[in-house]
Amino acid sequence: MSHALALAARGLGRTWPNPAVGCVIVKEGRVIGRGWTQPGGRPHAERMALDQAGATAQGATAYVTLEPCAHHGKTPPCAEALSAAGLARVVTALTDPDPRVSGRGHASLRANGVQVTEAVLEARARQLQAGFLKRITQGLPFVTLKLAATLDGRIATGTGESRWITGPAARRRVHLMRMTHDAVLTSSATALADDPDLTARDMGAAHQPLRLLADARLKSPPDGRLGRSARENPVWVLHAPDAPNPARAAWEATGARLIEIPTEGPHLNLTAAFHTLATEGLTRILIEAGGQFAAALIRARLVDELALFQAGCLIGADGIPVLGPLGLSTLADAQRPRLVETATLGPDTFTRWSF
Amino acid sequence: MSHALALAARGLGRTWPNPAVGCVIVKEGRVIGRGWTQPGGRPHAERMALDQAGATAQGATAYVTLEPCAHHGKTPPCAEALSAAGLARVVTALTDPDPRVSGRGHASLRANGVQVTEAVLEARARQLQAGFLKRITQGLPFVTLKLAATLDGRIATGTGESRWITGPAARRRVHLMRMTHDAVLTSSATALADDPDLTARDMGAAHQPLRLLADARLKSPPDGRLGRSARENPVWVLHAPDAPNPARAAWEATGARLIEIPTEGPHLNLTAAFHTLATEGLTRILIEAGGQFAAALIRARLVDELALFQAGCLIGADGIPVLGPLGLSTLADAQRPRLVETATLGPDTFTRWSF
Repeated sequence: MSHALALAARGLGRTWPNPAVGCVIVKEGRVIGRGWTQPGGRPHAERMALDQAGATAQGATAYVTLEPCAHHGKTPPCAEALSAAGLARVVTALTDPDPRVSGRGHASLRANGVQVTEAVLEARARQLQAGFLKRITQGLPFVTLKLAATLDGRIATGTGESRWITGPAARRRVHLMRMTHDAVLTSSATALADDPDLTARDMGAAHQPLRLLADARLKSPPDGRLGRSARENPVWVLHAPDAPNPARAAWEATGARLIEIPTEGPHLNLTAAFHTLATEGLTRILIEAGGQFAAALIRARLVDELALFQAGCLIGADGIPVLGPLGLSTLADAQRPRLVETATLGPDTFTRWSF
Repeated sequence: MSHALALAARGLGRTWPNPAVGCVIVKEGRVIGRGWTQPGGRPHAERMALDQAGATAQGATAYVTLEPCAHHGKTPPCAEALSAAGLARVVTALTDPDPRVSGRGHASLRANGVQVTEAVLEARARQLQAGFLKRITQGLPFVTLKLAATLDGRIATGTGESRWITGPAARRRVHLMRMTHDAVLTSSATALADDPDLTARDMGAAHQPLRLLADARLKSPPDGRLGRSARENPVWVLHAPDAPNPARAAWEATGARLIEIPTEGPHLNLTAAFHTLATEGLTRILIEAGGQFAAALIRARLVDELALFQAGCLIGADGIPVLGPLGLSTLADAQRPRLVETATLGPDTFTRWSF
């Protein structure tokens, strides 16, 4: 199952709206088939592994990171395919919460005489599939907030100078994170200040994440890096219903897709925005934005994980803070994410915190 | 030598103005004597180890973390004692930069027919002895700046609430740090806001660090925790020449020692203050103060090491910053300490950075 989970991780960022699943078929102690959900969501992991195993699958055991599907969609259901191949046993990590599956995959296997063992390495699978699970159960994507700051929590000098605070190893890790998320979201403030392109580079990246821009009034220039590259790699722009028409037209002309989001005062209603993005199929979103936008996400309790890069560098209180005001009245109200990973990246540190 | 260095570390914080030295005497593969500088600086490590070894020291090898002293002070020089005991060989990690020794210890041993090997594990010894070495060579103490903050670099909410951001494990580590420094220094702002007592607690601490208060105008109340306990554990108060006489009298009445320091504008000249403290014999000072004082020390480039405790907690930009303004004009001017240690302390992280 550990091997199947590692295979599943290959699909992260590339299979949405489908889950990234891994499958390993073992017979007499030998691996005879390995599969993972292919880009775009098909073929499924089980199909790929069965194709590798061929006729030798008869009597073998399949390890699958998620309950095999039971519904007839674009392809025949995997539960039937596994039974038809003559597998003796199927071991799964998670029950699929999708109402079209939800136990029917396991039941179908058992009805066909296949032995089923459930919930193996479930906690790890739950973590890996957090995006898919949250989308299905809450109608929201899994949100990773990336912050890169100095030891004293600053992202730029008072004059706005921010290149570079962290080193190349930290920046490479950010590009890897972009590849394993369905989409990367930035705000108009960051688009205006840094003109980012939000692509995954220098990693032999065959795949680019969808790029999202949250820009209520469409103030970001359509001729920036995002707009200029919108025909090569998709860009979706989230804006308020009352965004000016000329700006809409200019952004539409770049090839970007415009999505209207209800507002909350002068800002986009971020909860509504994320529900919309989940409806569009997104399961994992990486946020790369400034302190004000990050604080708005924290206040709205939309962040699932914080990825914090810290450089051995001190800027002082006249620098720009990594997080805007949260308006806490007491310390007891502060959100306290839990440490889940620490690493050293060249001269910088990396910590991951789960909310 | 590694064992001798571990023994030497036992004396940190307790031997000033003397160095904390360790000594191990080995004969035929067996340890026959172990010593470390005793509280107050005497007996020396070599004397203690020789006393343990007794007559068996004849023909043995001594491992000493610092060149043995050669000058007649309160006790006879260790170099002579080692020769007199009939040691065949002395291995040292460092040459003592004290002009009264500086090679004379090694020379005295060789003149008496003892084989001498120098510079074994020198880098580790240099780190351990950083306080003693800096005091002798630069006339300044080794300064550790302790900061405890949230992930976004805040030490309190906007209303000043700060108890507790970090957890018990982090606080215990702070108490351990207090024990291994000669003195703990705080500022008047922290004394007024938190009324700290700066003692080492809950560690079975037999030893308390000297406590230092930097308070130019003597605004801190003499009946706070520091003043009330000044007769049990010494307190030195650093103040400006023009501090008001009634406040001086009140602080003197507590039993605290008052030390006049020249000013730089409205503040104490911190470089002058640290030179004075080194002259008084202090080799290792731990700073526990607020963001303004920490920034002043960073600006004056007086900090040797940053000990950063971070809690998985977010307060936001309306909280109080861990570091005051540094007045950088460009990012290239930012100080970039180097990561030397990382640890997880319960729910918090700890990193140590060397300037």
